[in-house]
Amino acid sequence: MPALAWQRLGEYLLDSRLLGSIQSTLYWDQNTVMPHEGASWRADQLSLIAKQLHARQSSAHFETLLAEAKTEFEGARLAGTITPQEQMERQRNLHLLTQEFNRQKSLDPKLVGHLAIARSDGYHRWQEARKNSDFHCFAPALASLVSLRQEEARQLAEPRSCWETLAQPFEPDLTCARLKELFDPLRTLLPELVDKVCAMRRSPKRKWELDQALQKDLAKRLLDEWGRDESITCVAQSPHPFSTTLGPRDFRLTTRIVKGQPLSSFLATAHEWGHSLYEQGLPSQSHQWFGWPLGLATSMGVHESQSLFWENRVARSKSFSQRWWTRFAQVGAPIDSAMELWHLMNPLTPGLNRVEADELSYGLHILIRTDLEIALLEDGLEVEALPSEWNYRYKEFLGISPANDREGCLQDVHWSEGLFGYFPSYLLGHLISAQLAEAMTSDFKSQGCDASDPLEAFIFAGEETRLLNWLRSNVHCHGRQLNAEQLVQKVTGRKLSSTPFVKYLLTKLQNLGL
Amino acid sequence: MPALAWQRLGEYLLDSRLLGSIQSTLYWDQNTVMPHEGASWRADQLSLIAKQLHARQSSAHFETLLAEAKTEFEGARLAGTITPQEQMERQRNLHLLTQEFNRQKSLDPKLVGHLAIARSDGYHRWQEARKNSDFHCFAPALASLVSLRQEEARQLAEPRSCWETLAQPFEPDLTCARLKELFDPLRTLLPELVDKVCAMRRSPKRKWELDQALQKDLAKRLLDEWGRDESITCVAQSPHPFSTTLGPRDFRLTTRIVKGQPLSSFLATAHEWGHSLYEQGLPSQSHQWFGWPLGLATSMGVHESQSLFWENRVARSKSFSQRWWTRFAQVGAPIDSAMELWHLMNPLTPGLNRVEADELSYGLHILIRTDLEIALLEDGLEVEALPSEWNYRYKEFLGISPANDREGCLQDVHWSEGLFGYFPSYLLGHLISAQLAEAMTSDFKSQGCDASDPLEAFIFAGEETRLLNWLRSNVHCHGRQLNAEQLVQKVTGRKLSSTPFVKYLLTKLQNLGL
Repeated sequence: MPALAWQRLGEYLLDSRLLGSIQSTLYWDQNTVMPHEGASWRADQLSLIAKQLHARQSSAHFETLLAEAKTEFEGARLAGTITPQEQMERQRNLHLLTQEFNRQKSLDPKLVGHLAIARSDGYHRWQEARKNSDFHCFAPALASLVSLRQEEARQLAEPRSCWETLAQPFEPDLTCARLKELFDPLRTLLPELVDKVCAMRRSPKRKWELDQALQKDLAKRLLDEWGRDESITCVAQSPHPFSTTLGPRDFRLTTRIVKGQPLSSFLATAHEWGHSLYEQGLPSQSHQWFGWPLGLATSMGVHESQSLFWENRVARSKSFSQRWWTRFAQVGAPIDSAMELWHLMNPLTPGLNRVEADELSYGLHILIRTDLEIALLEDGLEVEALPSEWNYRYKEFLGISPANDREGCLQDVHWSEGLFGYFPSYLLGHLISAQLAEAMTSDFKSQGCDASDPLEAFIFAGEETRLLNWLRSNVHCHGRQLNAEQLVQKVTGRKLSSTPFVKYLLTKLQNLGL
Repeated sequence: MPALAWQRLGEYLLDSRLLGSIQSTLYWDQNTVMPHEGASWRADQLSLIAKQLHARQSSAHFETLLAEAKTEFEGARLAGTITPQEQMERQRNLHLLTQEFNRQKSLDPKLVGHLAIARSDGYHRWQEARKNSDFHCFAPALASLVSLRQEEARQLAEPRSCWETLAQPFEPDLTCARLKELFDPLRTLLPELVDKVCAMRRSPKRKWELDQALQKDLAKRLLDEWGRDESITCVAQSPHPFSTTLGPRDFRLTTRIVKGQPLSSFLATAHEWGHSLYEQGLPSQSHQWFGWPLGLATSMGVHESQSLFWENRVARSKSFSQRWWTRFAQVGAPIDSAMELWHLMNPLTPGLNRVEADELSYGLHILIRTDLEIALLEDGLEVEALPSEWNYRYKEFLGISPANDREGCLQDVHWSEGLFGYFPSYLLGHLISAQLAEAMTSDFKSQGCDASDPLEAFIFAGEETRLLNWLRSNVHCHGRQLNAEQLVQKVTGRKLSSTPFVKYLLTKLQNLGL
């Protein structure tokens, strides 16, 4: 197929991706090494690139390139000069590009400007409010963000509700109804399980510590064992762990050392490595492919399913503790058995903090936030009422109450930057991870593995590569060809549901003797 | 003064500086953390920014802004509405901006394109040639670079020789005649001193080593003592040490650990810190000022004088060894006295490598390169004759011969990227540093310090801040208001010459008992 228009579009997209990856490099540097006082100039650098990116993504030139590529594609399709595979891929790319372009174009530039200011203002006020645990100093900024984002949804004028519209960039095609269907079974079950576990837990958590250098070394050994290729990945430390892709062969991840939590850095490494493996497995092997929508992750939920798989399914598994406990013991951790490490890896104690939450109570943190943000955006919940609503729900779901708003509704950064619709992805990730793991298990069994739990067996044998290869060829390779639900349907043969996650939790609790 | 045109120009320059500093951030990341395989995408990112920068610096819009600012300035000058100080600063800014704009505009974009390709090609061939010590595989690329840069000088059509024209970006206003005047006295003196020292040196250099973590810690203590502010500076490791400025309050420097050279990292830190202090002292305190020529270093020679001051004058001084030798001894270095550390800090053994050269023979490495590049560009020296000319001069000046071209004319990267006119700055830095140190000494004496050598006395007392304050208020603060020679004339009351450098060397040799 003579693909001139297609190539011109590709080159344009590649330059956009170059700019985007420069933005990510600045962000990486800011969070890993930049001295504190560099912040103001860095903000100016980022804003310059953001302006350039926005201009590119909504330009008349881009619109023309897109239209020409469509015409060329239609011609080739009618002439039958492209393969069905190519046709499918190109159609999907064009669909996603058009959708994104229309979104950028529907927005009044004035609103974009107001939002940028409101976000920056919101973030600063939130920092201040959090420091002083004073929600009221943040409330007006939050109210303004809510109303500006409501206006954004109106301008986008999609056939969806306000919250749904804002959630699209994170979870394409998600609806509130579907979310309710997925999350509702957890609303009663999770609090019951939390109650039960709290009643059973006898010994309080033991305090211990591990030297920073030893923590770093253990995390390095983990990645070495999991096949990290140093020529394409690097690891650093940052206040909040993250993973980012700076080029088709340039993957970065960070971890952090938390005082009093000697396993935190190790588990954060496993988690971020899961994100990175997904990115490394996306269909973007060449620079050319790298700029297209199909070369990207399909949703934040799927992304999170990959990080959670490596953190919870692998690193917190019993087999993993059996293989690793002596290494922890050898560097001086007060651990005398595999079971002891396994229990330490799975504390299951409900707390007020989402980021530090365990697998069992994590979902409740998300349910609370999801309910509240939908109420804020769609049901007229007043911003001023947020703290009391928050505290009420924590008492109801987790049986605990924050002592102040810093521990409560001021703990997360998302809303301060007007980020609504993002939280559910964290819980969707748990659900997707569990359902994928079930499919993986049955695939291994049907391939002749006779262990009762093939995943545990492979982890015990240090053969995590098998797990990775399965994820690569079943999940990573699709990029944005399929949305999250389509992907799960294709891979598992069933609609996404909370059942596998609940089953996984129950089994784990039983094995832990809880 | 109503300065609308001036402000518009300032905003334009600020955006250019933002882009330039993004380029520097990408470069920093590339050299400190980027995984190896990220190189190709990073090159694309850098090239995108370079194209944007070139477009900005030669655009019709920039030309208009510049013309409007000039008109506005002339009006204000005639109306007498600006102070003499403002007048001087603005005039200098406009002069430098116009000069740079004219340079960018005189170049045929085709030549710029060819040069970019030839540089990249030259660099890759040089790497290959160096690996195999095979100059002939590099020669055609070098010949092409020579001829393209000759063409560049022709297009620039300045009233200077070819080499002089190419040297301007590094040493504004430098001429070949002036360079000859400055360097000629060293041509006979330095080889004589090298001979003398070689004859005197008895004991061969002792081999010792220091653990990496200890080397890092000593370097950190050095910077802490020298007043490093962690909120604006950060340190990393890179294959070649460098210093860079990423924002008005964001300074970075790197060092490297060299096996078998336990003082290398420490001295490289002192050197790069000197570069950084100059940048930190430039008149660019606010974002606004940061984009203007006056906010920049005036020449590479002056930059080098600042790094050499802190490396050679301070860290390699006898007083410094007296204050620091116990700290080296305490971490296990086999050093029993201040004199022993001092001798180790000042090895004075001529070698084939410029980067590792000592203070005495360093100048000879530069003389050889300067002669050869002028001969290549102006006197028809054939590229193929370079290795034999190189080797002949090393034998003549330093009494040693490289075993192969890797140790010889392939050792430096500069020519492979078509960088001609840069080398002399290294030696000019030695001269400027020595002359500034003389002036500093006499200033301290006239301010009542009765030590025979006030610099040594202050270093002994740990009062290097006095040295820094002198440099700040006499050297750093001028930015590009004065060129290198004007600066030296203003600060020392004399024309730049090699006399203070020679005097300094002779005194040091005498004190070292050589």
